[in-house]
Amino acid sequence: MSDLLIRDVRLPGRGPVDVLVRDGTFHQIAAGITPPEGAAIEHGGGLLLLPGLIEGHAHLDKTLWGGPWYRNDVGPARNDRIENERRFRRDGAHDAAGRSLSLARAYLGRGTTRMRSHADIDTEIGLRHVHATMRARQAVPSMQMQIVAFPQSGLVNRPGTVDLMDAALSEGADVVGGIDPCAVDRDPVGHVDALFRLAEKHGKPVDIHLHEPGEMGAFSLDLILERTAAADMRGMVTISHAFCLGMIGERDREALLARMARWDVRIATTAPASSAVPPLAACRAAGVTVYGGNDGIRDTWTPYARPDMLDRAMHIGLRNALRRDDELDWALDCVTGAAAVGCGFDRYGLDAGCRADLVLVQAETAAEAIVSAPVRKLVVAGGVVVARDGMLLV
Amino acid sequence: MSDLLIRDVRLPGRGPVDVLVRDGTFHQIAAGITPPEGAAIEHGGGLLLLPGLIEGHAHLDKTLWGGPWYRNDVGPARNDRIENERRFRRDGAHDAAGRSLSLARAYLGRGTTRMRSHADIDTEIGLRHVHATMRARQAVPSMQMQIVAFPQSGLVNRPGTVDLMDAALSEGADVVGGIDPCAVDRDPVGHVDALFRLAEKHGKPVDIHLHEPGEMGAFSLDLILERTAAADMRGMVTISHAFCLGMIGERDREALLARMARWDVRIATTAPASSAVPPLAACRAAGVTVYGGNDGIRDTWTPYARPDMLDRAMHIGLRNALRRDDELDWALDCVTGAAAVGCGFDRYGLDAGCRADLVLVQAETAAEAIVSAPVRKLVVAGGVVVARDGMLLV
Repeated sequence: MSDLLIRDVRLPGRGPVDVLVRDGTFHQIAAGITPPEGAAIEHGGGLLLLPGLIEGHAHLDKTLWGGPWYRNDVGPARNDRIENERRFRRDGAHDAAGRSLSLARAYLGRGTTRMRSHADIDTEIGLRHVHATMRARQAVPSMQMQIVAFPQSGLVNRPGTVDLMDAALSEGADVVGGIDPCAVDRDPVGHVDALFRLAEKHGKPVDIHLHEPGEMGAFSLDLILERTAAADMRGMVTISHAFCLGMIGERDREALLARMARWDVRIATTAPASSAVPPLAACRAAGVTVYGGNDGIRDTWTPYARPDMLDRAMHIGLRNALRRDDELDWALDCVTGAAAVGCGFDRYGLDAGCRADLVLVQAETAAEAIVSAPVRKLVVAGGVVVARDGMLLV
Repeated sequence: MSDLLIRDVRLPGRGPVDVLVRDGTFHQIAAGITPPEGAAIEHGGGLLLLPGLIEGHAHLDKTLWGGPWYRNDVGPARNDRIENERRFRRDGAHDAAGRSLSLARAYLGRGTTRMRSHADIDTEIGLRHVHATMRARQAVPSMQMQIVAFPQSGLVNRPGTVDLMDAALSEGADVVGGIDPCAVDRDPVGHVDALFRLAEKHGKPVDIHLHEPGEMGAFSLDLILERTAAADMRGMVTISHAFCLGMIGERDREALLARMARWDVRIATTAPASSAVPPLAACRAAGVTVYGGNDGIRDTWTPYARPDMLDRAMHIGLRNALRRDDELDWALDCVTGAAAVGCGFDRYGLDAGCRADLVLVQAETAAEAIVSAPVRKLVVAGGVVVARDGMLLV
């Protein structure tokens, strides 16, 4: 692989720099780099340089992206949507691998170079969706993808699910997923214990969907924190959604956030407009890592969302009333640096030695990039130019 | 003006139709129309036919659209933003007419054919922004625009403002604007009385920004409803924002909604993600007309928002958790039919005799049009093709 030199790009708050990529890695980022012999040259034209974007909470396997419009007449409860999805999968011929690939490629074209995706596991579909997501992952090698073994319909309430989770983790799933220990599984202690046993057995992190409201969610979170401490799983646990942190009183919230910070338990947020959410400023002030994800995109649950992490950063900004440019830097952090920390992606960032993942856009600041839906002029993943002017090349 | 025949477009839930436009008006919408001699022919290619979109709450005069990026370091209170904006106007050379025109044209290219825009009036700028908005209106004759005389900094608390409002209404402003009778003007009775005196004198409707939270907002709303009844201004009053209706108890809210329905007092909502909002389903169920607006776009207040009413419909859907296709029809209604009723635009809709305003997009249903940010393949305003493939032609 020959060297790649990208000339004349801008880091927020700094003058123009050049970027030299060697062997898929950032070799140097500095002003006025002399082109090595044989290097491929790209002209940045003063565009804003962002690190590769990170999707921290996706459900590739559920998406209908690229297919005909799905008329949604489901509702209104979460369990209605879980049931409807199971029925849809049973009745139809959902091509989880093909749709996942289509969506993953759309993400890549919009500058997302790393992703954590949850793959449904239940006693009806077994590991079909895990395998489908793995096939999509193989087909997009320039994207780094973590797969979460996710018991969408519950874990201990459906005998056989724990064994399927165990098998998925043995076969290469990266993360132990969980969901609403009280509200879905209806056995909070049994659910959390099963998750942490799987995590300890496989030496893998945990990522638990926690939609539970108010005090119910706070109770589940309390149990999770207790197990995190007992298993000494510092920095290995993510709470996805964590709506309860936007509902309970400030004093209770601060107490939970302090424990989360102590055990480095992270939050993945989609920042939905229609729900309470963990308040970003308060979480950051408490030292809790918060990162962003789209959750489902165009599936039987929801018609919304786009495979674009700048768009998700915009929703995080809107939900948290971030208006100032320095506040919108936090929203960018949710889909870049904080997401790398949160998911545990290594060699991340715009520094020598990091994997050469970057995006160039026409924008003055990160804030402008977030609000203006800019064309991705150039996307580099692992040192390879994978998209140009919004068009995927690989 | 020769006839215009648009062949083969789709109305949601109906088969293909043709649209015949004569003298700027819909003449016939039916299957298999025989082209009149000399008619210009457009081929719809099975695209979805939507009526012209309506922006129900804009602030053209504040926007920085089309200019360099404005670094926002303002905050955090509403009065900080009001003060910052006044300072910005005093210090800088804000080209309110030029920026307004730039934004109005962006709206038109995205299918917005009618708009209500608030124009700031205060004792520092006098009628400068009203005149700027009027100039923009003259320069985009294919868009129908209402101008609200809007006392951004307060009405009775700044002597001379009422006289300026009076002058603006005499000069052609269409609507009497108001703002937070308690929180901004600090004289709720004086504020509301002054507004309704202006409205009665000029025979024009009222549109009051009501950001006030909870019981304070409910109190102001109560005063407004009292005056609406006393002046018999049925169907002549809009409450913009009305955040309080998303904060107070259900019983109090229902009582206020019942009075609003009785006097046909409308709500204009931006459905912000970070604030309580009037719940769309409850308002509709009570018989209250709710319509949508973007509020400010890229100004000293906010970096967000786009001159695109399908985008605003998406935010209304997201904020109100509308997922089903039939629910998303409500979101479309907020930026089409309900907005026409709410603002009092006549000859609106896809019926013979209405002003020929339409948009064609590639989408299966209104829901898909709302979530997918489709290119506006064709925009017709007052019978004239004003945009094609997302590009403005006029």
